[in-house]
Amino acid sequence: MQAQLEPFHAIAISRLAHALKAQGRSIIHMEFGQPSTGAPPAAIARAHAVLDDDAMGYWESAPLKQRLARHYQERYGVTVDAERFVLTCGASPALVLALNSLFSPGDRVALARPGYVAYRNALKALHLQPVEIACGPEVRYQLTAAALAALEPAPAAVIIASPANPTGTLIAAEELAAIAEVCRERGIRIISDEIYHGLSYVAPAQTILAYAPEALVVSSFSKYFSMAGWRLGWLLVPPDHVARAQAYCGNLFLTAPSLSQHAALAAFDDLAELDSHLHVYAENRRLLLAALPDLGLRAIAPPDGAFYIYASIAHLTDDSLDFCQRLLQDTGVATAPGIDFDPVDGRHFFRMSFAVSTPQIVDAIARLQPWFAAQAAR
Amino acid sequence: MQAQLEPFHAIAISRLAHALKAQGRSIIHMEFGQPSTGAPPAAIARAHAVLDDDAMGYWESAPLKQRLARHYQERYGVTVDAERFVLTCGASPALVLALNSLFSPGDRVALARPGYVAYRNALKALHLQPVEIACGPEVRYQLTAAALAALEPAPAAVIIASPANPTGTLIAAEELAAIAEVCRERGIRIISDEIYHGLSYVAPAQTILAYAPEALVVSSFSKYFSMAGWRLGWLLVPPDHVARAQAYCGNLFLTAPSLSQHAALAAFDDLAELDSHLHVYAENRRLLLAALPDLGLRAIAPPDGAFYIYASIAHLTDDSLDFCQRLLQDTGVATAPGIDFDPVDGRHFFRMSFAVSTPQIVDAIARLQPWFAAQAAR
Repeated sequence: MQAQLEPFHAIAISRLAHALKAQGRSIIHMEFGQPSTGAPPAAIARAHAVLDDDAMGYWESAPLKQRLARHYQERYGVTVDAERFVLTCGASPALVLALNSLFSPGDRVALARPGYVAYRNALKALHLQPVEIACGPEVRYQLTAAALAALEPAPAAVIIASPANPTGTLIAAEELAAIAEVCRERGIRIISDEIYHGLSYVAPAQTILAYAPEALVVSSFSKYFSMAGWRLGWLLVPPDHVARAQAYCGNLFLTAPSLSQHAALAAFDDLAELDSHLHVYAENRRLLLAALPDLGLRAIAPPDGAFYIYASIAHLTDDSLDFCQRLLQDTGVATAPGIDFDPVDGRHFFRMSFAVSTPQIVDAIARLQPWFAAQAAR
Repeated sequence: MQAQLEPFHAIAISRLAHALKAQGRSIIHMEFGQPSTGAPPAAIARAHAVLDDDAMGYWESAPLKQRLARHYQERYGVTVDAERFVLTCGASPALVLALNSLFSPGDRVALARPGYVAYRNALKALHLQPVEIACGPEVRYQLTAAALAALEPAPAAVIIASPANPTGTLIAAEELAAIAEVCRERGIRIISDEIYHGLSYVAPAQTILAYAPEALVVSSFSKYFSMAGWRLGWLLVPPDHVARAQAYCGNLFLTAPSLSQHAALAAFDDLAELDSHLHVYAENRRLLLAALPDLGLRAIAPPDGAFYIYASIAHLTDDSLDFCQRLLQDTGVATAPGIDFDPVDGRHFFRMSFAVSTPQIVDAIARLQPWFAAQAAR
């Protein structure tokens, strides 16, 4: 049996947005989860230098792995050996590497619904069985230790994400600890997607490794480090999985882009620049949150981190894809339909990414206000 | 059941080579299959320009796909629609994408032995069953239509590679046509790894698409285009597989590196520079072929293309890994043991990559001559 994967509907929205732009329309891109900023200046400068003096063959940067290890020490107070990092072409192949090197066809893997569509689809593509746990407003759209304790039979693994996509919600430290405990007791392997770490507005996100040293961590330079198109991520594995993960990586993917590895190492010298992005996102978030009641959007997931607002539009539609298409056609504001993240309840939600500039957010709000007023009046 | 993957032993050789270099030894790196040259000047110049004026988000280059389509028209006289290219982070994920999007666990996939180790290992990792066909000197170490016709039951697919790794041998045009015919009759899907195209010394390699339009082609910018560390490849799929391949790519890998896509497009403006590399390889190949009899290496695969010599060392050893280690220790010349490519007969072979400079080849030959003479005299 081959897997059938759902398409990303946000891609269709984005395609429509580009078509409208080609017709001369003004478009604000809030449909994808990527910074509109580029890599920090130190990374760009390093890339220029490397371009001129390195033939760039297949390469794995030992200094970058050492810098990542230091990063875990400094940011989380967690000691990890540099050898435990496997560098990949972004977080997506890091997740594939984790799943493929750990599990066998038919193994069950729990995950939250709503959640990032590629979790479910990657599991299906790898012939693993997604076990989706419905997570509503009562649990802040996040997995809980209780839900994992109640799941029968125990799954082989769970994918957690804090801050999450599409909601931006964090799992609180004590809940992370409780999840780690339940998983240890039940023999559930934790894969923690920490790609939105560094982007928090309420409290810094703690790595799962502080609670579950045997967990696997997926992350990348695409979000906080603002280097999405550079395609560089990592899988952090327990010591007893290093050799196996490296063998799988070498055979499935070979190495990560050389230039990106050089640039990413330099990006650590520019954390002030990256933190300035965070200040922009915080302001964008503040402006959007202030505007939402006026738009009639009162049921939203708490946007603790990342750069998303996931809002209910149940009072306006049963078809979030149609809703996002109309919104884009009428206002030029591109957003993502909830069905990309939740095949069951997603028709009642949409996601706005606020990783754009503050003037764009101001502009978007000005366009949304009359449109939502007209929708409510229909 | 989880797969057990063999390590790349060439990596251990390379590690030893770097350790020896750190001790002050002079090392000639002939262990890996990558050009020692960098990307062509036009690609480097374009990368500098893009670094300064593009934020580089997730991106898929339509112009690059169009340029690739033109390339197939110009080089092969084969018309393919630009939409049929799926851009990937190198050829490795392109192969994974082909295998994972086409086949189900347990499906049998035929391949030549000797062959690139990652074919066998990727198949195992994806729970597919490698069916290795022993290919000796009598068939120039290559798959034949006759071998595929005789295989019972018919496999779901076959991986072909011409020029091949580790041998460099080409499949002749009439044999490619016969393979296509057998596969059509028997319902065997062809996946053709054409990563060494552009690097031929006897006749240009023809794409399988000239004979089997329904085949999938894996290739990359790593070899002829001299951009290994840029991690950019493609999977070329039949029209009825485009949507599925794109869905799998989006969920498993997302996009390819943006800067590499820009640079690769520019690389097509510098084919003269790339052809000059080929002239270096041709001279290196000529020098090595002239020196081999003197080394006592008389049984070699015909190096029609790529940049490899795969030579029998059966008269000297039963342990190719030990042989390569001793050769490296004694002479500083790093090579790859045959067991990386052939788990059965590879103990009697080693592979030399001649994608280095001509002075390095001259130096290597000078080091090899007394060493092989001493071996033969033992």
